Amino acid sequence: MQNEKIPYKIYLSENEMPKAWYNLRADMKQKPAPLLNPGTQQPMTAEELSGVFCEELVKQELDDTTAFFQIPEEIRSFYKMYRPSPLVRAYCLEEKLDTPAKIYYKFEGNNTSGSHKLNSAIAQAYYAKKQGLKGVTTETGAGQWGTALSMACAYLGLDCKVYMVKCSYEQKPFRREVMRTYGASVTPSPSMDTQVGRKILAEHPGTTGSLGCAISEAVETAVGSEGYRYVLGSVLNQVMLHQSVIGLEAKAALDKYGVKPDMIIGCAGGGSNLGGLIAPFMGQKLRGEADYRFIAVEPASCPSFTRGVYAYDFCDTGMVCPLAKMYTLGSGFIPSANHAGGLRYHGMSSTLSELYHQGLMEATSVKQTEVFEAAEYFARVEGILPAPESSHAIRVAIDEAMKCKETGEEKTILFGLTGTGYFDMVAYEKFHDGQMEDYIPTDAELEQYRNTLPKIG
Amino acid sequence: MQNEKIPYKIYLSENEMPKAWYNLRADMKQKPAPLLNPGTQQPMTAEELSGVFCEELVKQELDDTTAFFQIPEEIRSFYKMYRPSPLVRAYCLEEKLDTPAKIYYKFEGNNTSGSHKLNSAIAQAYYAKKQGLKGVTTETGAGQWGTALSMACAYLGLDCKVYMVKCSYEQKPFRREVMRTYGASVTPSPSMDTQVGRKILAEHPGTTGSLGCAISEAVETAVGSEGYRYVLGSVLNQVMLHQSVIGLEAKAALDKYGVKPDMIIGCAGGGSNLGGLIAPFMGQKLRGEADYRFIAVEPASCPSFTRGVYAYDFCDTGMVCPLAKMYTLGSGFIPSANHAGGLRYHGMSSTLSELYHQGLMEATSVKQTEVFEAAEYFARVEGILPAPESSHAIRVAIDEAMKCKETGEEKTILFGLTGTGYFDMVAYEKFHDGQMEDYIPTDAELEQYRNTLPKIG
Repeated sequence: MQNEKIPYKIYLSENEMPKAWYNLRADMKQKPAPLLNPGTQQPMTAEELSGVFCEELVKQELDDTTAFFQIPEEIRSFYKMYRPSPLVRAYCLEEKLDTPAKIYYKFEGNNTSGSHKLNSAIAQAYYAKKQGLKGVTTETGAGQWGTALSMACAYLGLDCKVYMVKCSYEQKPFRREVMRTYGASVTPSPSMDTQVGRKILAEHPGTTGSLGCAISEAVETAVGSEGYRYVLGSVLNQVMLHQSVIGLEAKAALDKYGVKPDMIIGCAGGGSNLGGLIAPFMGQKLRGEADYRFIAVEPASCPSFTRGVYAYDFCDTGMVCPLAKMYTLGSGFIPSANHAGGLRYHGMSSTLSELYHQGLMEATSVKQTEVFEAAEYFARVEGILPAPESSHAIRVAIDEAMKCKETGEEKTILFGLTGTGYFDMVAYEKFHDGQMEDYIPTDAELEQYRNTLPKIG
Repeated sequence: MQNEKIPYKIYLSENEMPKAWYNLRADMKQKPAPLLNPGTQQPMTAEELSGVFCEELVKQELDDTTAFFQIPEEIRSFYKMYRPSPLVRAYCLEEKLDTPAKIYYKFEGNNTSGSHKLNSAIAQAYYAKKQGLKGVTTETGAGQWGTALSMACAYLGLDCKVYMVKCSYEQKPFRREVMRTYGASVTPSPSMDTQVGRKILAEHPGTTGSLGCAISEAVETAVGSEGYRYVLGSVLNQVMLHQSVIGLEAKAALDKYGVKPDMIIGCAGGGSNLGGLIAPFMGQKLRGEADYRFIAVEPASCPSFTRGVYAYDFCDTGMVCPLAKMYTLGSGFIPSANHAGGLRYHGMSSTLSELYHQGLMEATSVKQTEVFEAAEYFARVEGILPAPESSHAIRVAIDEAMKCKETGEEKTILFGLTGTGYFDMVAYEKFHDGQMEDYIPTDAELEQYRNTLPKIG
C-alpha cells in the first residue's frame, strides 16, 4: 500500500475547491420535463413557485441553460467547515477483496449531519436568509436532511421547523435531539398544527405518519406563515445543482492524479447524491468528451428506476405539490415497514429520470440483507460505519470489483459514500440478530399503486 | 475570513505525518513514579506485567529514557485511514465571540470510533497480533474505547472481548451494536463469566456495575485465557506514548504556518488525550526551548487534579491492578449518577500527575451545565457536535478567549476536540429539557473516599 503514489485520501486545497455549481441540464439536448401545476397541468411559473420556494431557488429550479452558478462566498465559507470531503482510495478493501480493480469513494459523512445533505441545506438556508425570510419549514424521515437543515439554519440564525415522520420521531429520539441541539423545532407528523395533519389524524387516528404527509404539513405551514418558505432535500433540480459540488470535487481530485473512473456508482432515493456525484462526468459524456458507466443502485423494496414507470406524478402523498415527470411507483407507494435501508421515496429526480430514459445511465436494485452484509464488511475493512443508504452503492461496488477479479480487468470504480450509520444501529442490530427480512413487492402490488398516477394530457 | 492566509483546516500530507511516537518521560528530570506490586509494594517488573500486557507494550510502559519509538509501518498504514486529523482554525467561533484570540482545535472525532481512542487501540491490538495472541480483553464505560478497540481488532483479525458497565450496556444499546458490527463480543458487567463478577453480583444483586468492576473482570478473563492479554485505553504510559501522535501532528501543522500557541487546553479523565496533545510542547518546555501554559480541564463532579491527593492508589475499584502514584480521589470514588459529562475516572495518568505536581501544568474544574452550554454553542457555530468530554476543553477555551476580549490580548489558544457526541444524546436531551443538575462533592465526601487509599511504605 505504502508504495503507491496515490495517497490514501486525496484532499483538495482551498484554492482547488469548486467556485461554481454545475448545472447538468445545460448540457442535455433533451431537457428534463418541467414541473406541472396539478390544477392547470401547465408548467409551473416562477410566480407560482415563489409562494413555496425562495426566489433565487426558483430561478435555479427553472434554469436549464446556464451551465455554472457561482457559489456565493458565504456558502463557500460554510463549505470550508467540512469540505473538501475526502476522496478515499479504498486500498484496504481492494486488498481484502483481492481484486485488480481500483476502488475510490467520495466520503460525504464527515460532518455532524452525517451526510451529503448539508451541501444543499446551507445553500437553501442562505437564499432564504438573503431574501430576508424569518425561517424555513421542511419534512424529514430518517432525519439526515432535517439535521443538515438545522445546522445550516443555526449557522445563519434562521428559524427552522421540521416535521418528522411520527414513527421516526419515536424510534429515533437521538436524531430529534441533534436537531434540537441546533435549535430547530421538531414536530411529529401528522400533527394537530396543520389542516392536512388534523384531517389525516381524524381519518387514521393511530397512523405513524409518512414522508408524503410530512411534506404536505411542511408546505402548508410555509405557505401559511409570514416570512417562511418550504425547502426540500432531494428530487428537485436546485438540489441536484448544489450537490454537484460532490462530483466537481471528486473529479478535481482524480484529475490531479490522472485517474479516470470506468464506472461511477451511487445509491438512489430521490437522486440528490447520485445526481451530484455524476454531474460533471455525465456532462463530459453528454458533450462527447469522455465515456463512463453510471450505475444507480436502489432498494429492491422501492425500485422506482427498475420497476417504476416514466410518467408525471405527484411528489407527495398528499397530492398538494406540483407534478413531476419521473420514474415513479405511484405517490401512494410506501415500502414495507420492515425495510430499514432508507431510499424510500416513490419517485426520482426528473433530471436523472430523463437521463435513464435516454439510456445514458444504468440502474440496478439490491436486497437489504445483501446491503447490510456489504455495510458490515466495509465497516470492518475500511473503518467507516456506513449509512444503510450508502451501503447500496458499496454492495454494487464490491460486486463489480469481484467481477474484475474473475476477468482480471483493472477497472477503476468510483462510488459515493453518502453518510454514516450512527443513527441506524437499530437496523444493524436487526441484521446482527438475523431478524432482517427482505421484501420485494409483487407485480400486482406495484400495479395497484400505478393506478394512483394522475391522468395527464 | 477568506483573506486569512491560514486555511480553515490544516491537513498534513502523508509524508509530513509523524513516523515516531514521542515519549515525554524521556525529557522529565524527575520521572513519574513506577507502578507498584500491591502485594510486595515493589516496582512491577517486566515479567510481572507480561502476564497482563503484551511484551512490547510492557517495554513501552517501563521505558522512561527512550525519547522516540518508531511507529510500525502497519500502524502507520492504519493511521492513514483516519489521520492526519484536521487541525481547525476556529474562525467562526472567533467571529461569534468577537475575540482577538486566535483559536485552533485538533479534531480527533473524525473516525467511526468517534474519538482519539483509536490511536492507542490500533497500537495495542497490533502488538498483541504480532505476539501471536488470539485476542484481547478490555472494559468500556461510555463505549468510546470499546468501539475503538473493536475496530482495531476487526482490522487485524483479532478476537475482542469487551466488558461494558451494565448501566451503559442497557442505556447505550447503539454503542453496543457498533462494537458488534466490528465483531466484538460485548458482555454487561458485572457478569457471571468471572469470579469477581459472580462475587459482586452475590453481594450486590441489583448493581448496575462500575468501570472498576469491569476492569477487574477484563483482567481476570485475560489472565485466565490462553492467548489473551488485557488492554487499557487511558492512564498508562504506553497510552500516553501512542497518543503523542495528536500533539506531534498538531505541532507540525502549526509549525507549517509559524504559529506558536500561548496556551494548550485539554479535557482530563485518565489523561490520554491531554497527555498526547501536550507531549511535544511540554517536551520543549522541559528542555527549556519554549514556554506554554497547559490547562487540564476536569469535571467538578470528579476533580482528581484540583481536589485529589498525590499518592499511590489502585487503578481499579476491585483492587487487583498494580498501584500507581497519581492524583486520585480514592479508588472507591464514583461520580454522582446524574453526572453525564464523562471523565469519571478516580485517578489520573502518573506522568501528568508528576508534571502537575512539579507546577508545569495547571488544572481547573468546570460544572457540567456550563460544559453543555459550551457544547451546544460550539455545535451551532462550528458545526461539530462535540462529545461531553471534549466540551470541557471547549468551555475553558471559550472562557480564555473571552478574557482576551476584555484585555485586548491576541493570544493563540489550542485545544483538543477529542470526539463527537452522537451517542450522548440522552445527556443533551436532559440539558435541553432543563433537567441537568450540577453535582460537586463535599469535602466530607472526598475525605471519606480518601480513607480508602492504600498505606504505602
